[in-house]
Amino acid sequence: MAIGVFDSGIGGLTVFKEIRRLLPRANIVYLGDTARVPYGIRSPETVRRYASESAGFLTARGIHMMVVACNTSSAVAMDDLESKFDIPVIGVIYPGAKTAVETTKRGRVGVLGTPATISSGAYPKAIRQIDSGVSVAGMACPLFVPLVEEGWIDNEVARLTAREYLMALYKQDQDVDTIVLGCTHYPLLKPLLQKVASGVFEHPVTFVDSALETAREVKEMVAEKNVPVEEGGKVNYYVTDFTDRFCKVGSMFLGSNIERAELVSLPTWKD
Amino acid sequence: MAIGVFDSGIGGLTVFKEIRRLLPRANIVYLGDTARVPYGIRSPETVRRYASESAGFLTARGIHMMVVACNTSSAVAMDDLESKFDIPVIGVIYPGAKTAVETTKRGRVGVLGTPATISSGAYPKAIRQIDSGVSVAGMACPLFVPLVEEGWIDNEVARLTAREYLMALYKQDQDVDTIVLGCTHYPLLKPLLQKVASGVFEHPVTFVDSALETAREVKEMVAEKNVPVEEGGKVNYYVTDFTDRFCKVGSMFLGSNIERAELVSLPTWKD
Repeated sequence: MAIGVFDSGIGGLTVFKEIRRLLPRANIVYLGDTARVPYGIRSPETVRRYASESAGFLTARGIHMMVVACNTSSAVAMDDLESKFDIPVIGVIYPGAKTAVETTKRGRVGVLGTPATISSGAYPKAIRQIDSGVSVAGMACPLFVPLVEEGWIDNEVARLTAREYLMALYKQDQDVDTIVLGCTHYPLLKPLLQKVASGVFEHPVTFVDSALETAREVKEMVAEKNVPVEEGGKVNYYVTDFTDRFCKVGSMFLGSNIERAELVSLPTWKD
Repeated sequence: MAIGVFDSGIGGLTVFKEIRRLLPRANIVYLGDTARVPYGIRSPETVRRYASESAGFLTARGIHMMVVACNTSSAVAMDDLESKFDIPVIGVIYPGAKTAVETTKRGRVGVLGTPATISSGAYPKAIRQIDSGVSVAGMACPLFVPLVEEGWIDNEVARLTAREYLMALYKQDQDVDTIVLGCTHYPLLKPLLQKVASGVFEHPVTFVDSALETAREVKEMVAEKNVPVEEGGKVNYYVTDFTDRFCKVGSMFLGSNIERAELVSLPTWKD
């Protein structure tokens, strides 16, 4: 009777936070597979199995809509999840891709993401499907997640790292005018990235926050499909491993404390 | 009939490489639990279970000695593994701790490691047991692993990051004259760290490479306990998930290509 949100770990809390902001009275169940995070370094087969296990856990709790708040799972497991589960499934790739297409004036989009997301080609594929005239330049930024988790989001190391990645993107396509933050951790780096980008590109660049766009999509679909979201504003957090990190970094992502998370085992998924 | 080496992933290959250099004719089995890497962000209970599963897999292959080439597992699972398995078990903490105690002239040792290793307190405990007169300052360096895996081991971002962490260590104890590289990834940063340390500390600092010290310990124990290491120089790599990263980063760690790794499932461990 709720919206189910799952991620490989903590990152999905940025999506969760935006959903809660747009739908403050909806009940939401959050599952972080903290015992097996991160998914971005695993094979597609393993990610699909893990995603099915998380989705199976959530649907057993009677959710009416599922949000895949994990870029890696969204990149490789969406079709699989949609065929296996009989409720609306929203991933984090499509909403950001759609907004990027609507935003770009030059028809040139850049995407920043983890190595797994970039090498999956999920963003170029999604953007081509929406508008085949828009070209996409992708840039893997493996240092961004650890920088965010270290809390280094506006120091000199973060600035130089951002500059390094944005310069590499610029070298790929200097006409990019819209950049998708294609990882749930990246919204915390947005202010820094905006500052650095203005010194790299010769024209204004707009950043698209995929967490925010995903939450907008959730709100639209709730209205459009009449998803019976039970109200009460209740929130449940489930994790597959108890870690200080979930609470510490999680609170940084949410901007408020996580009082309580329940430790659970996921059902084994057999195809 | 071989030496078994396991790690949560790729990092243990720096230990493996040194063992191979010192015992080039020994048969070695390497297991990387790439489906569940990294261990450093998991709870001690989960790490102990995963370590038992890796150890169970290796002993079923008839090894005569086990090397825990993973700092997190060495920090929290050594006693557990020694009580469960009836072969010599060598971790990566003690050998580096011993050499650090022998090296320091001021009785002040610094340790760089992942957050899990530092917060486990395993190094201070090991060093106190060897010589209670030596004091230890620990510094968690969460950016170092992703820097190494990105191949950024001597650029400006790496230099500034190293300076940040070494300055924080210096502020804890400016008399540190010996620093343990307490993570299997860090030997690749050693040249940079030596350069940066000379601008931070007022006196010479010696870096202790725990991968190298562990390999020395393995060689000594093979001789001392007459471990029946079958010769032939054969090497087998096993992984729990196939990833490009194992081959790409692994080859960087080994300095040569990994031709072949076999995908395996680990037996579930029940206490």
